[in-house]
Amino acid sequence: MKDPNIEHIRHTLAHLLASAVLEIYPGTKNTIGPAVDDGFYYDFKFPADVKLSDKDLPTLEKKMKNNLKKWTKFTHKEVTEKEAKEIFKDNQYKIELIEEIAKKKEKITLYTCGNFTDLCRGGHTENPAEDIHSDSFKLSRVAGAYWRGNEENTMLTRIYGLAFPTKLALDDYETMRIESEKRDHRKLGKEMGIFTFDEDVGPGLPLWLPNGTAITDELEKLAKETEFKGGYVRVRTPNIAKESMYKKSGHLPYYEESMFPPMEYEGGKYYLKAMNCPHHHKVFGAEPRTYKQLPLRVAEYGTCYRHEKSGELFGLMRVRMLEMNDAHIYCTEAQFADEFRAVNEMYMHYFKIFGVEKYIMRFSKHDPKRLGDKYVNEPELWKKTEDMVRNVLIESKIPYIEVENEAAFYGPKIDVQVWSAIGREFTLATNQVDFAVPKRFDLTYKDSEGKEQTPLCIHRAPLGTHERFIGFLIEHYGGNFPLWLAPVQVKIIPVGESHHAKAVEIYDELRKNLVRAEVELSDEGFGKKVRQAKVSRAPYFIIIGDKDLAVGKVTLESRDKGQIGQLDHKEIIEKILTEIKNRI
Amino acid sequence: MKDPNIEHIRHTLAHLLASAVLEIYPGTKNTIGPAVDDGFYYDFKFPADVKLSDKDLPTLEKKMKNNLKKWTKFTHKEVTEKEAKEIFKDNQYKIELIEEIAKKKEKITLYTCGNFTDLCRGGHTENPAEDIHSDSFKLSRVAGAYWRGNEENTMLTRIYGLAFPTKLALDDYETMRIESEKRDHRKLGKEMGIFTFDEDVGPGLPLWLPNGTAITDELEKLAKETEFKGGYVRVRTPNIAKESMYKKSGHLPYYEESMFPPMEYEGGKYYLKAMNCPHHHKVFGAEPRTYKQLPLRVAEYGTCYRHEKSGELFGLMRVRMLEMNDAHIYCTEAQFADEFRAVNEMYMHYFKIFGVEKYIMRFSKHDPKRLGDKYVNEPELWKKTEDMVRNVLIESKIPYIEVENEAAFYGPKIDVQVWSAIGREFTLATNQVDFAVPKRFDLTYKDSEGKEQTPLCIHRAPLGTHERFIGFLIEHYGGNFPLWLAPVQVKIIPVGESHHAKAVEIYDELRKNLVRAEVELSDEGFGKKVRQAKVSRAPYFIIIGDKDLAVGKVTLESRDKGQIGQLDHKEIIEKILTEIKNRI
Repeated sequence: MKDPNIEHIRHTLAHLLASAVLEIYPGTKNTIGPAVDDGFYYDFKFPADVKLSDKDLPTLEKKMKNNLKKWTKFTHKEVTEKEAKEIFKDNQYKIELIEEIAKKKEKITLYTCGNFTDLCRGGHTENPAEDIHSDSFKLSRVAGAYWRGNEENTMLTRIYGLAFPTKLALDDYETMRIESEKRDHRKLGKEMGIFTFDEDVGPGLPLWLPNGTAITDELEKLAKETEFKGGYVRVRTPNIAKESMYKKSGHLPYYEESMFPPMEYEGGKYYLKAMNCPHHHKVFGAEPRTYKQLPLRVAEYGTCYRHEKSGELFGLMRVRMLEMNDAHIYCTEAQFADEFRAVNEMYMHYFKIFGVEKYIMRFSKHDPKRLGDKYVNEPELWKKTEDMVRNVLIESKIPYIEVENEAAFYGPKIDVQVWSAIGREFTLATNQVDFAVPKRFDLTYKDSEGKEQTPLCIHRAPLGTHERFIGFLIEHYGGNFPLWLAPVQVKIIPVGESHHAKAVEIYDELRKNLVRAEVELSDEGFGKKVRQAKVSRAPYFIIIGDKDLAVGKVTLESRDKGQIGQLDHKEIIEKILTEIKNRI
Repeated sequence: MKDPNIEHIRHTLAHLLASAVLEIYPGTKNTIGPAVDDGFYYDFKFPADVKLSDKDLPTLEKKMKNNLKKWTKFTHKEVTEKEAKEIFKDNQYKIELIEEIAKKKEKITLYTCGNFTDLCRGGHTENPAEDIHSDSFKLSRVAGAYWRGNEENTMLTRIYGLAFPTKLALDDYETMRIESEKRDHRKLGKEMGIFTFDEDVGPGLPLWLPNGTAITDELEKLAKETEFKGGYVRVRTPNIAKESMYKKSGHLPYYEESMFPPMEYEGGKYYLKAMNCPHHHKVFGAEPRTYKQLPLRVAEYGTCYRHEKSGELFGLMRVRMLEMNDAHIYCTEAQFADEFRAVNEMYMHYFKIFGVEKYIMRFSKHDPKRLGDKYVNEPELWKKTEDMVRNVLIESKIPYIEVENEAAFYGPKIDVQVWSAIGREFTLATNQVDFAVPKRFDLTYKDSEGKEQTPLCIHRAPLGTHERFIGFLIEHYGGNFPLWLAPVQVKIIPVGESHHAKAVEIYDELRKNLVRAEVELSDEGFGKKVRQAKVSRAPYFIIIGDKDLAVGKVTLESRDKGQIGQLDHKEIIEKILTEIKNRI
């Protein structure tokens, strides 16, 4: 028996759930039940007297498991519209679906297993009783859902289930879910004073509070240093530009839906920038270029604005303002592979710093049949750049998958996916090769023979946007940021008033060295001061009491490793400065 | 004889110029001739056959000096509209002026000196022949100007003159003018690759090129370090907000003309922010505050957008995008004086770093008669805060002047004026005390007795905006930025190929330490490499030749001080890093 497809298992379980519901609650209309990322759901219209809640789920689950034993084979048959309507004559939802399928002249098929038959396109396991472990799924919750997602339609009851290939995988997933709720970036972001939203500013537009800004600033510092050492130069460009700019770049009209609406100004239109690229192209074009200046690597932590539907906004993960770790590398074809390799190495460098152990690059390619339509018509360049990208990925031993027909209009694309410490997947960043847009902006350089050439351009943003990356980091670290990133790095706690002078001395020394230190000089009791200090999640606590001063030392405690011991205060400062500098 | 008023001298010279023009070019119509900041001008309608150019100025100047000897006394008389019109019947410009004066029911007066009579309100020196040194003024240039500045009117010829109390002052001014032309920030900004404008981005919206961004980034680093040590926290806020925000702040409708027009979005209006204050108030209001958290000093290099008329845009000095060294200090009344003093000390700290030797603070106060109208009606708070401001200025021994009736609506204001190295005056920054707006935003803190209080707010921006401050610095340094600010800090020049290895070793070491070093590895001759290197205006050049390697050293040369000598290369790196760190 070949390993059954997890999506087929999930889809089968949706059927099984419907069978259980119909047996326990006769008169219920079943509607639609698909597989989803972590399991399945099914939407029902229950009889008016049934009010389903989470406490009914164990009974349903038991019924599913009983039925599963009898589900040994799926059968299916094609029927006419008339036949189908006769079978589902009491279910107006299925009637609506049948009419739609008929209208599109598609086949109408019924799938049956055990005593249950559903209108369905197929995609199940062959022998559910054998293919599905009865302890590898469970019903998780009940929610409301409008018929077909339209809020003008009837409200239905949705039952969600989780399903994985094995019980172990299900348990792992549930552990991760509980952990990710504890680490929810919206919850921790508020508790830790990292960001806020304000209704007078507008939805999807985060205000970074002092603790969040400490993090954004450290990330920018890291990016600046890394990019400086990588031979990048920096620029700063306005957040707005004229309509003509975005017509030239092709954002207008094609991308208009994702942009904020224009400002009517001086007889023309100005738009908030949704991408930094056109601005960087203008920097490249600001002076005549020769091959001696290439590769030119133009970096900016640029703030862009994009329209996202208000219903789709989600904490820092989906926002309307994006501070992007952006750069555009202008290079010759001969330089491309080295530049692309260096970009990948920069990713690896960052992954190491942030302790990202699992990642994959999703390499999206063009489809030769769609050249000149979905993709710019440069068959040679597509082949050449896709080969170069693949070669670099192989040489650099980076895990990757190739995806057909998902490239950008102007070149191959790499999406970088990473997993947080608790195993959740995030898409962090996108790299793109661009061999079309530089031409639209008339960007050229003189080659060694004095001939005008168009450069290739690599769009890259390894740290993604502050918004999404910090959203990821909050979960990844569970709020316990490493020393160099922590909003409060060191808390200094004198036991009593006689230890204040020493505490202030250390505090001053740390602050002078730009360490985010805080000192607890209140007249509260020592225990309370320690509890207050721990709320800050500072990685280090320096405690000063009589026993310390007696031996001319102070006590260092680590948030993560507990007590480190009595040390000379100069040693501690040295240790802290070194760890910050090395970002460990 | 009391020292004659320089404005009176300049105004008198405008008359003297008109007398000379009318004598040499009969049939010319004289129109208007005021005193200006560095002298005077007069606008004329010459007969059709006269085409005046700069080469005619010496003749006119000579005639003026001759006439001056005879100008020993100004007389004046009041005339009726009819009399005035009779006298100027051939001059339609004067007729227009006379009719306007008559309409406003003002006195019509004629002033006469020597053989020349003009329609004039007065304001001359009593005895020009004695009061004016004939070598303390000169005619400077001829330009076109529309009658009354309206481009639909006749084009006139404007003759400009320079005038100062003494020849020495005139010479100094001319030297400064020549120097400031050489140092023109638009000219140097282009030559040095500091900034550019692009018509697809829009007028008044600078793009900071790599060399300019090196400077903006160093200034931000300085501000961040200084503010960190001053106990500030940092935030980042969006560039846009909803209409309701600016209604609350009072920017709408009163300040609407200075804002960009709105974007119609999701059934409401969004505006580009013109000020950071409302956003910072939202940060203050994001959580409940107690007196223990005050003073709260909220800093951001925030980018604002303001409408300026396109005709008034001028390089970096008047722009539509402003990256502002902003902060708002929320404090109690008892904390105000210390906070305000600390802000002044921060100014002094910066002036020292930038070698600004001459500065003055212009302290603008309210007018008690305009309370409740031009000024928020808080007579007590006005008195108290103005007294506190004055006391701090006196205690801190800061040169200042008091100006009546020029405060902001919500509190006293300080404009900081500085003089560049060549003696030109710039208004760099404004500090404001604000005791009205925090109330509009319902900002409160709990005092030590648990009572809700409204904080005072100090708006401050010692480094002004990047745009204006860097415009000032380009002139101030004449493009020769000090080491820590210089876009290229060190140029390394190996004499020949056998010195490349050592050059690269030093280069790598400097870059690793984040020094903006460049190395000249081309196969050009040594002389050409040196010339190319000097174009960069790098403060240091490291030269490596046989004679250096023979003794295991390299040669250090300073842009400003010439050859420093042979040094061990580790010593040089140490010296450079120390100077950068200390910003000397």
